[in-house]
Amino acid sequence: MSNPSLLILAGDGIGPEVMTEVKRVIEWFGTKRDLAFDVEEDLVGGAAYDKHGTPLHDDTMAKALKVDAVLLGAVGGPKYDALDFSVKPERGLLRLRKEMDLFSNLRPAQCFDALADFSSLKKDIVAGLDIMIVRELTSGVYFGEPRGIFEEGNERVGINTQRYTESEIDRVARSAFELARRRGNKVCSMEKANVMESGILWREVVQKVRDTDYPDVELSHMYADNGAMQLVRAPKQFDVIVTDNLFGDILSDCAAMLTGSLGMLPSASLGAPNADGRPKALYEPVHGSAPDIAGQGKANPIACILSFAMALRYSFDQGDEAARLEAAIEKVLADGVRTADLLGEEGVTPVSTTGMGDAILAAL
Amino acid sequence: MSNPSLLILAGDGIGPEVMTEVKRVIEWFGTKRDLAFDVEEDLVGGAAYDKHGTPLHDDTMAKALKVDAVLLGAVGGPKYDALDFSVKPERGLLRLRKEMDLFSNLRPAQCFDALADFSSLKKDIVAGLDIMIVRELTSGVYFGEPRGIFEEGNERVGINTQRYTESEIDRVARSAFELARRRGNKVCSMEKANVMESGILWREVVQKVRDTDYPDVELSHMYADNGAMQLVRAPKQFDVIVTDNLFGDILSDCAAMLTGSLGMLPSASLGAPNADGRPKALYEPVHGSAPDIAGQGKANPIACILSFAMALRYSFDQGDEAARLEAAIEKVLADGVRTADLLGEEGVTPVSTTGMGDAILAAL
Ligand SMILES: CC(C)[C@H](C(=O)O)[C@@H](O)C(=O)O
Ligand SMILES: CC(C)[C@H](C(=O)O)[C@@H](O)C(=O)O
Repeated sequence: MSNPSLLILAGDGIGPEVMTEVKRVIEWFGTKRDLAFDVEEDLVGGAAYDKHGTPLHDDTMAKALKVDAVLLGAVGGPKYDALDFSVKPERGLLRLRKEMDLFSNLRPAQCFDALADFSSLKKDIVAGLDIMIVRELTSGVYFGEPRGIFEEGNERVGINTQRYTESEIDRVARSAFELARRRGNKVCSMEKANVMESGILWREVVQKVRDTDYPDVELSHMYADNGAMQLVRAPKQFDVIVTDNLFGDILSDCAAMLTGSLGMLPSASLGAPNADGRPKALYEPVHGSAPDIAGQGKANPIACILSFAMALRYSFDQGDEAARLEAAIEKVLADGVRTADLLGEEGVTPVSTTGMGDAILAAL
Repeated sequence: MSNPSLLILAGDGIGPEVMTEVKRVIEWFGTKRDLAFDVEEDLVGGAAYDKHGTPLHDDTMAKALKVDAVLLGAVGGPKYDALDFSVKPERGLLRLRKEMDLFSNLRPAQCFDALADFSSLKKDIVAGLDIMIVRELTSGVYFGEPRGIFEEGNERVGINTQRYTESEIDRVARSAFELARRRGNKVCSMEKANVMESGILWREVVQKVRDTDYPDVELSHMYADNGAMQLVRAPKQFDVIVTDNLFGDILSDCAAMLTGSLGMLPSASLGAPNADGRPKALYEPVHGSAPDIAGQGKANPIACILSFAMALRYSFDQGDEAARLEAAIEKVLADGVRTADLLGEEGVTPVSTTGMGDAILAAL
């Protein structure tokens, strides 16, 4: 039997640096745990634009559709700010999400004990925080038509369309309920049903999925503005949050920042299961390309390495190996090993991106 | 000359209780400062629905268009949750905003020295915080057409339309730059121009208004998801934030919660100036109708009283009188007088809604 396949798209900014450490970890699993992967690499975002004039070449898209999982670094940077909308680095990422049909985006907001002091929130509000945000990723205002800038009378008007079908809501709701069953068994769904009809349909379908197939899971509904407030006020009230593409973009970033250590947070974007039972999947850190520190060895590779741990768990059914990797990272943090984003405490050991990779491999 | 006119719409939940205290303050200004108002009262939200079967009667709408300023309490409550979308309490408020053309919603997020401990954020992150969020209030996805729930194939689809014309963006940008000039002279504009064409137009128009007519004001642009993160990470980096209706809804609630004392925050919704130079205006607290504590004398009337202070400043050019009222409130807080939402410290004096009104009148 052939090895499971990975496509690595390191992308822009700090993407390539953090991905270098991920590749060392992947190799370790091949050598030491008999868990070898066939790894291919390619370009995405600005890096792809520089070479091909498009942020995602068709050949890369075809590869992504063929492999068992994609690992992505980050896309974007000031160099590409003036590019036309259609070839901006972000369009490469959005095309991957759409064509792989990755409708369920899992964004954990987890506060690591050793790092609770980095939060701008009081320690007791965030210590032990463990939320999972499930964001719909292939529809809504990100992809709805009509869209564009049009002439109207003697001025221009900018238009985007928020749009959700029942089946789009149904499938992402299911993925949230499934996840909740393996966690705290509680889902909070967020929309603006008091203002938007798409939110009314969202609320109705989520409730129906719960009542029909997940009566054991506790479900509540919250307006998204209140959701933002509650995340800041008392985030530990939540277990799983399910919400649409745009609200999910904002609320998951808000939740991520509560933990104070963005360089630590991974994400998984999952599609429907293939014939072999594996979902189409893309894994990437929550942080961006951080062009200001790119190439300086300052980047924290942990979020990207934890994204590979999510791949082990969700794509390759290797929950134990994922836990092994996560435990190694917790140990390194407990030992006081810190990249530049996490300095400030007494008695810690500052390391470079590579130094952090070394420490994690040693702990493994 | 006749007195300036006010329409009071106390609304639902704690609305009537907090408005009772505002009325005492208004009276005080009439008696003691020779600043008399002609005050009329009417219904909005659930209260209006109960009486008229609509959350805003046409007569009330007509009155609102005639007076110099509207003071609103709060709308909504679980009693009305099952009502049809078109007659929900919120529709009353949205109709007022739209027909009065209140395009510029000013939402200060201010941290009161005496209350900094109530924030879930660390004291040094929020102490002295003073942000003004300018939210576009009459357009965007709140009002765009087409909207609704439609049949499509054999399922339903929920649709809303995000829509901004150049002139809609232009006018709210101007109001943000004007405000910035009277504060820290710095505006940050937030959208998702990396994903939405309406955001591209937004960014372009805001930049053009700045370059053409406000070159002295510092302008930056930020994606709304990053905006949510930065608000949590380091809110004091902001002076004025300008953003659209939906982003403004979420980001202003997030910002409000940073201060930890929602019961303290007022807002102003302003339209174009009338012939007499006064803008059409509606003032309301940021907090909602809090049905869980309604009728128990627990509500904090300060947000609603501070909304009247904003009315003195923005509608009646009485900045000194507004400052007098604000100073009285600061004194009462410094003296340790606290409603139920602000208990928890040592050595404070708990008071009822009326007790807080008494204390503020005494301080005046
Ligand atoms: C880069 C951008 C297109 C993207 C988004 O808006 O979805 C990012 O903010 C994210 O959350 O993954
Ligand atoms: C009550 C509701 C319609 C309203 C809104 O969404 O604008 C509220 O959340 C607000 O922010 O004033």
